[in-house]
Amino acid sequence: MSAGNFGVAGLGVMGRNVALNIERNGFPVIAYNRGGDKAQRMREEAAGKNVTVTQSIEEFARLLDRPRRVLLMVTAGAGTDAVIADLTKALEKGDIIIDGGNSHFPDTDRRAAALHAAGFHFVGCGISGGEEGALWGPSIMPGGNREAYERIAPVLEKIAAKTADDGPCVTYCGRASAGHYVKMVHNGIEYGIMQAICETYDILRRAAGLPTAAIQKIFQDWTASPKVGGFLVDITAECLGKIDPDTGDALVEKVLDTAGQKGTGKWTAQSALDLGIPIPTLAQAVNARIQSGLKEARVEASKILHGPAGGLRGDSGELTERLHDALYLSMIACYAQGLHLIQAASREYDFGTDLAEVARIWKDGCIIRSKLLDPIKEAFRSDPGIENIIVHPSFAPVVNAALPQLRSVVPAAVENGVPATCLGASLAYLDSYRAEFLPANLLQALRDNFGAHTYRRLDKEGVFHSQWNRND
Amino acid sequence: MSAGNFGVAGLGVMGRNVALNIERNGFPVIAYNRGGDKAQRMREEAAGKNVTVTQSIEEFARLLDRPRRVLLMVTAGAGTDAVIADLTKALEKGDIIIDGGNSHFPDTDRRAAALHAAGFHFVGCGISGGEEGALWGPSIMPGGNREAYERIAPVLEKIAAKTADDGPCVTYCGRASAGHYVKMVHNGIEYGIMQAICETYDILRRAAGLPTAAIQKIFQDWTASPKVGGFLVDITAECLGKIDPDTGDALVEKVLDTAGQKGTGKWTAQSALDLGIPIPTLAQAVNARIQSGLKEARVEASKILHGPAGGLRGDSGELTERLHDALYLSMIACYAQGLHLIQAASREYDFGTDLAEVARIWKDGCIIRSKLLDPIKEAFRSDPGIENIIVHPSFAPVVNAALPQLRSVVPAAVENGVPATCLGASLAYLDSYRAEFLPANLLQALRDNFGAHTYRRLDKEGVFHSQWNRND
Repeated sequence: MSAGNFGVAGLGVMGRNVALNIERNGFPVIAYNRGGDKAQRMREEAAGKNVTVTQSIEEFARLLDRPRRVLLMVTAGAGTDAVIADLTKALEKGDIIIDGGNSHFPDTDRRAAALHAAGFHFVGCGISGGEEGALWGPSIMPGGNREAYERIAPVLEKIAAKTADDGPCVTYCGRASAGHYVKMVHNGIEYGIMQAICETYDILRRAAGLPTAAIQKIFQDWTASPKVGGFLVDITAECLGKIDPDTGDALVEKVLDTAGQKGTGKWTAQSALDLGIPIPTLAQAVNARIQSGLKEARVEASKILHGPAGGLRGDSGELTERLHDALYLSMIACYAQGLHLIQAASREYDFGTDLAEVARIWKDGCIIRSKLLDPIKEAFRSDPGIENIIVHPSFAPVVNAALPQLRSVVPAAVENGVPATCLGASLAYLDSYRAEFLPANLLQALRDNFGAHTYRRLDKEGVFHSQWNRND
Repeated sequence: MSAGNFGVAGLGVMGRNVALNIERNGFPVIAYNRGGDKAQRMREEAAGKNVTVTQSIEEFARLLDRPRRVLLMVTAGAGTDAVIADLTKALEKGDIIIDGGNSHFPDTDRRAAALHAAGFHFVGCGISGGEEGALWGPSIMPGGNREAYERIAPVLEKIAAKTADDGPCVTYCGRASAGHYVKMVHNGIEYGIMQAICETYDILRRAAGLPTAAIQKIFQDWTASPKVGGFLVDITAECLGKIDPDTGDALVEKVLDTAGQKGTGKWTAQSALDLGIPIPTLAQAVNARIQSGLKEARVEASKILHGPAGGLRGDSGELTERLHDALYLSMIACYAQGLHLIQAASREYDFGTDLAEVARIWKDGCIIRSKLLDPIKEAFRSDPGIENIIVHPSFAPVVNAALPQLRSVVPAAVENGVPATCLGASLAYLDSYRAEFLPANLLQALRDNFGAHTYRRLDKEGVFHSQWNRND
């Protein structure tokens, strides 16, 4: 079933690199892009390789072996719908369409229903790894039609990143839109970890007053850490070490501090609200990007609203050690929140997602790969129903050991006027999660007072309503 | 046009009380509920009053003067659609349907389009004030068809709460779903302020170890504060003072600490994400309710994850003073975020909302009424385009004065193991808003490193992409 060639539709940088990856792994590729520029670029990069480039969707269909396997690498949204509409005219029943973009999961469900009704097989497939990953081995998160997945699995397993000890970074993530859901949360976690790294950098820079070169040295050391080590710390060390050829200064100092976003972090936060799962670190990371975008307002406000100047002693290894552990715990919180959300979504939407497998395929190829994912995988493998890894026996001691460090870092930021958006949210999350009693008793009393919303009691069963404004 | 009787459909506690309010203000009421229990309760409460109760929708339509004015007081969601479907069969073109429930604003837009196409006038109308407000004078937030609003305004102005100096608490909030949007954000602000109050209580209780009676005394004092004084502080003092007749203890201590929610806070957070407006305090208040709901997990986790026992000196007036100012600033942050969101929504959806009017009608009748709303109203009246009140000349000195207190309270919570979810988010919000430089420069460098997302520079125009992993 898996023999034959493989179609790639959409030849932007991700599409081109995935096509080259597939070809390198022994599968002839038929590559389609309507526009000439991208098709031409593909022709150049594929010169001498077993890649046939076409700008005709009819030729694309004619050249593909049946049942056809077509991977869409198109910008999520209306563009995906447009290419699918074109494809369905050219393809035939029984063909397999794989959406490899960052589609919003409800769109994937809608498209799956329409395509299945028309006789096509559809696989919603998250792909992470950026340009390099697409070319040399991404982490691949497919979901949807299982039969169709089995037909494309031999290709996906070849092109995926390979862990040293745990196989290729691809697994069937579950039915319906499970693949795109898992990829969406992957990106939500990515937002959280990146923001926690940025706040750590900000504390070192603005609170402790360290120059970029010194901060680079710290992150460089951390690339070897068995705790925070991973791709995002690796590239942080790279970014901090890059010199601007124009000025000879660190290039990062020249970069405008307004962050962009493409929707996956936002969708993660919105979905968590719908499912009632707490992911405050990930949600606050989205907020941090939004606040960064208000650059003009911030510059104005900086002249109007005042705070302390940074006076943290930054030259001691002790601060660095505390920050290391605080970042570590915040990373754990990010994974914990994201996996809690996937677990809940899998139950709500009946995805049937295996969390151990999710952690396994994130071990390499993707943006959030890090040393933490192996113990996370092990935890879910031994106990697939884990709600939250922070209380699992394999993580609780780690959380307990790092909590005092995070607890000391947040005030250090706060007292020096540096926003601890995600570090603070991580700590509040953990302190809320471990609180036998929260002040929601007062909240329920207030709601019952003004809205007769009723309340329950700690000491007896039942639903109660009181006249709170009088004792009689 | 305003003469004649007025219809109320849906006779739950809010519907009954609004009906009695309308009747008390001189308008005959025709009250409809299909179910017998609620109709019977209305008959009992309206005995001797000019209220005609019917369980027949045909009779309801027959008894109403034309053009009919019908206020729906139905639980938001499918119930509202069902009653509207029944009503449209019984009513005639030109009649006015007012949805007084907490409908999600996109539903209001959908219903308005369908009803206008069918020849009806539709007004989406937020109503805040709880049971008491509905009966004696709520804050009313209508939007939609302006002509229809003019026809019902004489009734709404009579039944609304009256400010001492600023007229009745009703205004036309703008076109389309503006009324329900403003009400939604009102509730989002309500979530934020309530959670900030709860955290203040939690610090006094768990960090400082004060008994409920002592905390009650503090909030009782604050009811007279020109800063934090308002309805929510008033009822906090009430709730903390209520004695459980069964045990003789403070009743609030017996209330189960898991908070409910009905959707408006969640919708506020989701809409803010869509519009890209930062409302972290309001969003974290929703998160706090979600975390409170995980009671069983929390009880388990409390045995596994550890933190410091509260050791804050709580017997000094100095702590109380700091908490007062921290709460005050967090309340300002809540209003600032919510009004920023309404301002942005008004621009995005072309509502034409007058923010000064919104602040004015919140001055009385609604749950978030407080002493802060008068200066907020004045600020918007003098400068209708304000993006964010925190930098307005009337608030900036207040923010600057209270920032050090909030900055000291967050570490006090954190170091004593009490989650500062909303207080911490408020401080991070303010410190981000006033930051000329945020660490998003590193974020953009990371995104460009792995995803070729490009970046802009501080020192020159253009869009850049770099090879971050090498210097050459």
